[in-house]
Amino acid sequence: MAISSFHPPLRTLMGPGPSDVHPRILEALGRPTLGHLDPLFVGMMDETKELLKYAFQTSNELTLPISAPGSAGMEACFVNLLEPGDKALVCVNGVFGNRMIENVTRCGATAIRLDFAWGTAVEPAAVEAALKEHGDIKVLAFVHAETSTGALSDAEALCGLAKQYGCLSIVDAVTSMGGVPLLVDKWQADAVYSGSQKCLSCTPGLSPVTFSPAAVAAIKARKHPVQSWFLDMNLILGYWGEGGKRAYHHTAPVNALYGLHESLVMLQEEGLENAWQRHATMHSALAAGLECLGVEFVVAAEQRLPQLNSVYIPAGVDDATTRQYLLAKHDLEIGAGLGDLAGKVWRIGLMGYSAKPENIRLLLSALAAAMLAQGYECDASVALAAADAVLA
Amino acid sequence: MAISSFHPPLRTLMGPGPSDVHPRILEALGRPTLGHLDPLFVGMMDETKELLKYAFQTSNELTLPISAPGSAGMEACFVNLLEPGDKALVCVNGVFGNRMIENVTRCGATAIRLDFAWGTAVEPAAVEAALKEHGDIKVLAFVHAETSTGALSDAEALCGLAKQYGCLSIVDAVTSMGGVPLLVDKWQADAVYSGSQKCLSCTPGLSPVTFSPAAVAAIKARKHPVQSWFLDMNLILGYWGEGGKRAYHHTAPVNALYGLHESLVMLQEEGLENAWQRHATMHSALAAGLECLGVEFVVAAEQRLPQLNSVYIPAGVDDATTRQYLLAKHDLEIGAGLGDLAGKVWRIGLMGYSAKPENIRLLLSALAAAMLAQGYECDASVALAAADAVLA
Repeated sequence: MAISSFHPPLRTLMGPGPSDVHPRILEALGRPTLGHLDPLFVGMMDETKELLKYAFQTSNELTLPISAPGSAGMEACFVNLLEPGDKALVCVNGVFGNRMIENVTRCGATAIRLDFAWGTAVEPAAVEAALKEHGDIKVLAFVHAETSTGALSDAEALCGLAKQYGCLSIVDAVTSMGGVPLLVDKWQADAVYSGSQKCLSCTPGLSPVTFSPAAVAAIKARKHPVQSWFLDMNLILGYWGEGGKRAYHHTAPVNALYGLHESLVMLQEEGLENAWQRHATMHSALAAGLECLGVEFVVAAEQRLPQLNSVYIPAGVDDATTRQYLLAKHDLEIGAGLGDLAGKVWRIGLMGYSAKPENIRLLLSALAAAMLAQGYECDASVALAAADAVLA
Repeated sequence: MAISSFHPPLRTLMGPGPSDVHPRILEALGRPTLGHLDPLFVGMMDETKELLKYAFQTSNELTLPISAPGSAGMEACFVNLLEPGDKALVCVNGVFGNRMIENVTRCGATAIRLDFAWGTAVEPAAVEAALKEHGDIKVLAFVHAETSTGALSDAEALCGLAKQYGCLSIVDAVTSMGGVPLLVDKWQADAVYSGSQKCLSCTPGLSPVTFSPAAVAAIKARKHPVQSWFLDMNLILGYWGEGGKRAYHHTAPVNALYGLHESLVMLQEEGLENAWQRHATMHSALAAGLECLGVEFVVAAEQRLPQLNSVYIPAGVDDATTRQYLLAKHDLEIGAGLGDLAGKVWRIGLMGYSAKPENIRLLLSALAAAMLAQGYECDASVALAAADAVLA
């Protein structure tokens, strides 16, 4: 066996994440490694916390990136807030709500499950009814932007209900951060986690989290130790804590954090509102083009995520054939359906650096070609013109 | 607030890790990001597993990198092998043995603690006595290479005792992999975890793990689900499993894995035995030089790790002053003492790409200058000549 260096081709990433990574971020990854307790690195950690507070729109002191992917960020929220015997109301409208249930039960807590049709938002009225019915819910958990379906839920209303009924909220903002408004303080969200590889256009592997003062109080009042040593926020805070002594907890992923820092600097340069507007505009252009190709959206327009577009695979067109065509002939990746939607939909991402006119034009022309090759009638030039009309 | 891009200086890393990262690995990190289910990326994952089998000297099928730092690798071993009510015998001869105890108790299992003086190896005779005394131990856990003290324990003897007394062994090989012999199959170790940022010279953030068939059988026979969803090997195996369908579990840290792959390709090119020999030679050269400076080792010669050199801070020399001098004037990082040894010792790493003659010469001359500046009498030229005599 002799294995040689791996040189990946240059793909265009329009799936559910990772999204295209900006060259500035790729370059940042390769900067010289510092020790994880080097004063200059510690200064960069402090800057990263400040930049994350901006991205989350929060003044929460406990705001930092977990040194692992979004699934670990999810687990960090659940294992820190829940204790054995607690009850959590979990809203399920896609794959990631199901994963939340798994997290709750592995904490020795009880999950009360509230289902919504895949491709629709969580209904606040149904949540309120459940909160009324069960008087002893500690945590209300939901997914802000369901990456498996492309539905956007009303996080402001849901976090408000949590406050009204005396619960803590856990919000999955993996796909929402940087792509649509996410206002942690205004909405009074308690524990929120995201991912580096979606609308921040960074590489996968890090999970920004933020905890409100109420969440921190709950963590400090725990009767049982947090079941995970690696994700125990009491210990992580000792390492990421402002100003004071840095207590060694784990070795931070130094170079990955260079990339996250760079991506957050870029978000600050663009401005959050401008980033949200860009995602909205690119979505409108893509939607105009897809309509001309006869491709229909899974989610109703008013509940649709601009950065994750779930569309039905037209009759007569094959899922795998199409995705293979795009990858082989155009180095273009789009996402397959997950769970109940596998084989029925594609998921087209317009996240971060991927949300740009060139990608929309590539997607429309390549998808039209892939479908034409299977005998499906469509006209790429009309679709491109419709998208360009929005972009003009 | 306007925060700009972070440009770290070029340091020489001779602490307890991260070690100097080879330019080939830094370059690999910035290669174009692929989707985490892209067939080309999946092929690279298969190669990484093969390369890790070589580095671990194992044919264990369940060999892969955990998508988080070494502490998560440790936790992965404990949460998968231990269930509530189980008993684990934990050998403690430094910081990381203490951390193992934390892991055991957070699993709801009972830790039986066996202490050894810091700076010494784990004593197999004491371990055997404890195994005899307690008849129902499920797991024997120990640290192969204690990064907090620089002591190397006899993993072959300890894993042999585990087999003899019907236990599973958990071995911390974070600092040993690539630096000293680590022969997982020959020694019949059951669950072993390492880190990317030590003798592999890769960036921090990934934790290679391997599980023997006996360990896998214990995981499959569990009565309770693994308490961590993120670290549940049953689920991770579905994503990393050979050949078959890749079940989405979490989004792999794609670019970090490019770096690990490159570092393992380099290890294969050098050859494991050559890497071990290089670490041994560099250690001898460093030790010869340090002796001339009157700097003494914490660990007896026959139990000493070549890649992590704990030395007493000479009388009249200040810990922090010296480390700050090295960092400020020479961009050279060495490590402080941890736990009981804080303020009393330095930890000088010779790991991976850091284990080279240039680094030894820099360390000896810079350390001599730092100590001379504090009125400590020593002669750098004599120390350099002694090191060169070994290197010749």
